[in-house]
Amino acid sequence: MSGTAQIGVTGLAVMGRNLARNFARNGFTVAVHNRTTAKTDALVKEFGDEGTFVAARTPEEFVAALERPRRLIIMVKAGDPTDAVIEEFAPLLDEGDVIIDGGNAHFEDTRRREKALRERGIHFVGVGISGGEEGALNGPSIMPGGSTRSYESLGPLLEKIAAKAKDGTPCTTHIGPDGAGHYVKMVHNGIEYADMQLIAEAYDLLRRVAGYSPAKIAETFRSWNTGRLDSYLIEITAEVLSHTDPETGKPFVDIVQDRAEQKGTGRWTVQIALDLGVPVSGIAEAVFARSLSGHADLREAARELPGPSATPLAGAEAAKFADRVEQALYASKIVSYTQGFHQIRAGSETYDWKIDLGAVAAIWRAGCIIRAAFLDRIRAAYDARPDLVSLLSDQQFAAEIGAAQDDWRSVVAEAVRQGVPTPGFAAALSYYDGLRADRLPAALTQGQRDFFGAHTYRRTDRTGSFHTLWGGDRSETATD
Amino acid sequence: MSGTAQIGVTGLAVMGRNLARNFARNGFTVAVHNRTTAKTDALVKEFGDEGTFVAARTPEEFVAALERPRRLIIMVKAGDPTDAVIEEFAPLLDEGDVIIDGGNAHFEDTRRREKALRERGIHFVGVGISGGEEGALNGPSIMPGGSTRSYESLGPLLEKIAAKAKDGTPCTTHIGPDGAGHYVKMVHNGIEYADMQLIAEAYDLLRRVAGYSPAKIAETFRSWNTGRLDSYLIEITAEVLSHTDPETGKPFVDIVQDRAEQKGTGRWTVQIALDLGVPVSGIAEAVFARSLSGHADLREAARELPGPSATPLAGAEAAKFADRVEQALYASKIVSYTQGFHQIRAGSETYDWKIDLGAVAAIWRAGCIIRAAFLDRIRAAYDARPDLVSLLSDQQFAAEIGAAQDDWRSVVAEAVRQGVPTPGFAAALSYYDGLRADRLPAALTQGQRDFFGAHTYRRTDRTGSFHTLWGGDRSETATD
Repeated sequence: MSGTAQIGVTGLAVMGRNLARNFARNGFTVAVHNRTTAKTDALVKEFGDEGTFVAARTPEEFVAALERPRRLIIMVKAGDPTDAVIEEFAPLLDEGDVIIDGGNAHFEDTRRREKALRERGIHFVGVGISGGEEGALNGPSIMPGGSTRSYESLGPLLEKIAAKAKDGTPCTTHIGPDGAGHYVKMVHNGIEYADMQLIAEAYDLLRRVAGYSPAKIAETFRSWNTGRLDSYLIEITAEVLSHTDPETGKPFVDIVQDRAEQKGTGRWTVQIALDLGVPVSGIAEAVFARSLSGHADLREAARELPGPSATPLAGAEAAKFADRVEQALYASKIVSYTQGFHQIRAGSETYDWKIDLGAVAAIWRAGCIIRAAFLDRIRAAYDARPDLVSLLSDQQFAAEIGAAQDDWRSVVAEAVRQGVPTPGFAAALSYYDGLRADRLPAALTQGQRDFFGAHTYRRTDRTGSFHTLWGGDRSETATD
Repeated sequence: MSGTAQIGVTGLAVMGRNLARNFARNGFTVAVHNRTTAKTDALVKEFGDEGTFVAARTPEEFVAALERPRRLIIMVKAGDPTDAVIEEFAPLLDEGDVIIDGGNAHFEDTRRREKALRERGIHFVGVGISGGEEGALNGPSIMPGGSTRSYESLGPLLEKIAAKAKDGTPCTTHIGPDGAGHYVKMVHNGIEYADMQLIAEAYDLLRRVAGYSPAKIAETFRSWNTGRLDSYLIEITAEVLSHTDPETGKPFVDIVQDRAEQKGTGRWTVQIALDLGVPVSGIAEAVFARSLSGHADLREAARELPGPSATPLAGAEAAKFADRVEQALYASKIVSYTQGFHQIRAGSETYDWKIDLGAVAAIWRAGCIIRAAFLDRIRAAYDARPDLVSLLSDQQFAAEIGAAQDDWRSVVAEAVRQGVPTPGFAAALSYYDGLRADRLPAALTQGQRDFFGAHTYRRTDRTGSFHTLWGGDRSETATD
């Protein structure tokens, strides 16, 4: 016996509810289920006229309502609740059915779950969904992992509800096997952290060095948003900065406590990058900047430390400085994406996911938080050279960052001189200068390691590993 | 039946062998054991006259050779080999015996093992040992975790073989329960990464901006080593830099490949700091700098990116610049230790270890890789105020970093202008300026989070959490 619903959603908090409505609005019959049935009833009552919902009261009813092979999306809190719900439903399913986890799971959990369910004949698909509540309802960017077979069944539905890029293509694609979808979503969020930190630094510089008001900065961001920085995050920055607190009449940004919170995906990105040996300094500094902002005790203790107070620039100088900040922001953004895409490539190689980096850039063009015109350029770079080792080796990005680097240096130097913290801009510039360096002082580091730990070193003039007898006559021995 | 050996060492690779010799030289009877007996025989044959060794061929012989309660040190590769050896010996032991893991274990593994063995009535002590081969033989810095009871049994032996600080106190102390010892050793290594990176940047600046030769830089480091930077790492930097490659006659540092390797404890430090919400940007940049140096493909691809070539300064200017580099190095070092000790404090609070931070600084004064005069000052700072929230709030460190900050800024600005990467110096300065900032742009970040994810924010003027209806009339609602 088979039900009539093409898709089921269990877990009807705001993300689940909006996703269910999105499917219904696109003409699919949607089975809906929630542990407490009040939420199921409320959804059907409030939005029942948007499409066809089948309200299920029990797991058994829910499963019975689905067409076979079944497609069932879990929208619950990542972690143990996900495992609990899987264990609730898996025994009710048949071979070939598809369980989809739409939460922000760690990709290693997804790998574990996929393997366990595969052994039971069930397809498990970890799906990264970006775009927040609004995206879930009107079209998110969707990053599904899992088997090719599962995408054949699920893909057409996802393509229907996903955001559409300007050229009309849906913002979803089969990322790769098992945890690939959640992995790419994780890096997406890491890049989002870096983007937000860079924007925050640009704002801080415009405020403290250019001496601009929040309203004037909003205007500046709006104008940047018509150029190469055109993106959702720049757009909402202007919205936030031009908002006035209704209660006090002050700029909204001035009445918000300067403590940025975080939920964990930025931290995961950096932790995994460390395991993979990928330098993601921009993302790391963004995560650290958030945690630093929350350490009220340390900040209080440091309040009296000496340093310059930024002296706002005057008129034409301020405008020139603002233009240079745009260059610094753009150059740093190129570095963030270079680091993020390096991390995706490294993950893809480590887990044998064969991720198409151009396709990833393409599905981030709409629906997600980091959506930006810029991503179409990244797509083009990888489409032209799928083996591109680094975004910095794309001719166009290289030319752009090269053209920006003078201003970028001048902005970081000015920030350092005036005591305005720019951990993101500075880390990005160090990465740039580190990569282009002919010789790095890592040679000294490796020499020290050989001195105190006999860790050996390689020579520039021939192959093999060597150790110098530092405690003896300082002769050299070959060690392999 | 009880044996005669006060201590046993199993695993006789270089670290285990040297530790066994250290015990023997200090008058203890040492049972020695190795999976392949050839190593045991070699040790006794070569070093038997240094003290009293009891060579054991089998685990049974080894255990029988030990005084009761038994003290048995495992010196094998961290990870699965440690578990295997524990499982080999634990069944042969009696209640109250002490197993000591002297490897570089992850403190979470140590916590797991301690708990499992405690349930079997056996004390398990994870011990961090720093100082390399030479330290193991002549006196390392020793960081034991585990129960207070186990320290009563083990402490007197460790105090005997540990390095001695200038004032004669042994460089070991009971760090705290279960994994505390390995945790503190991990952070020690993280700080070591940061120290080495800062030294590498100082070297690079002296080479490329001051235009000094390696020999001249060695001389500069030697003179720094007579002042507040007096430390083992500065000392060996001078040794490495003044060494000439016997084969080519070139400076040694120039024939070493500029790829710094790593074994994992720096990476662990950053990963755990991320979990604890502690900004350790200096350590992170040091880890990233090593991984960046190893990405030959990325570096090759970036070789042609535009940027300034550093122009060496002339005579007096170069000397002045070198003095400023000393200030920058010292200020950045204060920040590294501030971050590292923050991480120890955070770990201690999270795991309820009650670590005495002053005592940690004290036992790092000799024997370990980061040993330095500086640590006596940190000890003094925590002894004076055990509740010190941050090293930067110690009056003396605050005064010193305050006095250094002008030069520090000028060095970072010059590096940025001349295209020399200084990720460590710059990250430390951003941390300093971030902490002392009156307002951080984190307020904008939090406003953005509320805009796209309804993550709420706090206000500066009253308590509670709030959300602005960004998609609606932009009124504000209280959310708790």
